Order: sequence, then C-alpha cells, then structure tokens
Amino acid sequence: MHMQLKQIGTIHSRFKEPAGTLLQPVFDETEMGTVEILPEFTDGLHDLHGFERIWLLYWFHLAPPARLRVTPFRDTLERGVFASRAPCRPNPLGLSCVRLLGIEGNVLTIGGVDALDGTPLLDIKAYVPEYDAFPTSNAGWLDQRAMKRTHADHRFSKPAPTTDKAQRIDP
Amino acid sequence: MHMQLKQIGTIHSRFKEPAGTLLQPVFDETEMGTVEILPEFTDGLHDLHGFERIWLLYWFHLAPPARLRVTPFRDTLERGVFASRAPCRPNPLGLSCVRLLGIEGNVLTIGGVDALDGTPLLDIKAYVPEYDAFPTSNAGWLDQRAMKRTHADHRFSKPAPTTDKAQRIDP
Repeated sequence: MHMQLKQIGTIHSRFKEPAGTLLQPVFDETEMGTVEILPEFTDGLHDLHGFERIWLLYWFHLAPPARLRVTPFRDTLERGVFASRAPCRPNPLGLSCVRLLGIEGNVLTIGGVDALDGTPLLDIKAYVPEYDAFPTSNAGWLDQRAMKRTHADHRFSKPAPTTDKAQRIDP
Repeated sequence: MHMQLKQIGTIHSRFKEPAGTLLQPVFDETEMGTVEILPEFTDGLHDLHGFERIWLLYWFHLAPPARLRVTPFRDTLERGVFASRAPCRPNPLGLSCVRLLGIEGNVLTIGGVDALDGTPLLDIKAYVPEYDAFPTSNAGWLDQRAMKRTHADHRFSKPAPTTDKAQRIDP
C-alpha cells in the first residue's frame, strides 16, 4: 500500500538541534512555540477553540536511522523502540500532547513544545480525556526506571556508529 | 520533504467495514483484537511487557477523501476536522489507546480494538500516564455535545456526494 504523507504545517520552537530539546510537553509547559498551518488546511482548525490540549503528530525530520533497540533518554538500559518514545523509529512519527494557548488565523500558540524548529506537522487531533487519559495505567519499565532528565542529550543527534551492537534497520 | 510510510504490521479485528466499528477503545475494552507485527520489526517489542496500554498509530486505509469540515459521530453539527477524530483527514493517520493484554512472539492481543480488520499499522508507542494523561483537560465542543454513540454509522463509509456543501480537498 502506498502511504505518502503531506506536510500540513510547521512547528516553530527555540530548539535548533536535537540536544537540549524538551523531552515531553509535561516537563515544561511554559516552553512556548507556534504551529503554522498551511493556508489550504486552515479551515480544519474550526471549533478547536475550547480544547485545552491538542495532539500534534509530526515527522521526526532529523532523527537518525531507525533502530529496534534504543537506550531511552530516561534509562540506562536498552529497550525495544516500541516500548519507548525515542525518535529513531521505523516510521519516524512524533506524538505530543501540548497545551493550546491561542489561535490566530493559521497560527496556533502552544505551551510545552518539544519538537525541533521546522518540524513538519502531519496532523492535529483534539485531546479528549475520555479517549486519551488513563492516569493510573501501568507504564512498565518507566514506572521503575525513570530518571529525572527533562531535556535531550546527544544520543539521538546523529546516526549511531557502525560498531554499535544494537540492531539497525533501514530507515 | 519526502515522507513515505512503511507498514510495520496489521491490526486484526471483527470489523470488516466502517459502519458498526467501535469509535474509541474506551467504549468497549472487551472488544478483542490482535496486532501482528512483521517479523523484521518484532525485536522492537522488547520491554513492552508491563505497559498496561499502548498507542497504535495506523493508516485509515478505507477512509473517504480528506475533508476539512466533518460532522463527527458524536455530534450533529459540522466541525473542523482537526477538532475531531474523524478518519477523513489530510493525512489519514489513526491514533488509539488500547489495552495490551498479551504478547506472544510477533502477535499482541489487545482490548478495545477500534480499527478495521486489515488496517496497516505504522507505529506502537508505550502509553505513559505522565506524558499522556490529563483527565481534567477541557474538550471544547465535545464537553457540551457528546452523544452516547459508541459505534460508527455509515457517514465515513464512502466518499461524500459531490453536492455536499462541505469543503473537500485532495486526499
């Protein structure tokens, strides 16, 4: 099946390179950014007003090649990539729940931006607690191991060296 | 930017056509299904054990052409597509938070499957309440208007008639 994505907008933030980027919106909701929607898609923003949070789906455009085992930012051990939120995934799709602070024309102001400046936006979905919020859900290794790190280091800034033992797959 | 997706697996459910499909996992978590991961990606499932819920990201392969205004399943008024979870999006990306009930080799058993049988899977992400659960977040029009509907009707089963007043865009 042919599955080709189109860019519907761009995420703007103060993060120009992977290292130092916020790891998740919740770690600093005062980290402000904007989402600029391409004019031809702006009409789809109607009725977004009143949603306190939105999902951003985007393309990890600077992610290194996909790997099936990664050492997540908040751990010291290798984990399966699907048990992580690391960017170097078979499909480099990012998912972030940000605060929606304002809408002006085709520009959204958001709190908790955790994407690189210039990130291609793929979709926005309303955040609906009834569908999305399960506050007591067990979180496997993260329940035991989460370190206090809130911002990225260099580990996903460039392709892993070829001597890396972790299995690599085509991007 | 070239953004081409690859199928990493397939969602299996009892839903063979859009009408009658569960709308969101939370509406019936006893609705059982499986996720079959392609063998070359199975290694990425390591450490997923222990996560009570996972995000499935998938391709709405039977969605009608994209529209910017839709009448959501749980409303009687047209809304911007980004303020909805409707399938006919500019990028037909689906997002569901399902219960992870078991892992056997490359097959996950899930509860609350709300995708059509044969849906191409794009990504799995661990559900992490700290990142994803905001139970008191306001949900705009849905807070006021949500109908009790839990399963799809025919509205997104086929392309809207060309006389439809809603703006349509290229898929």
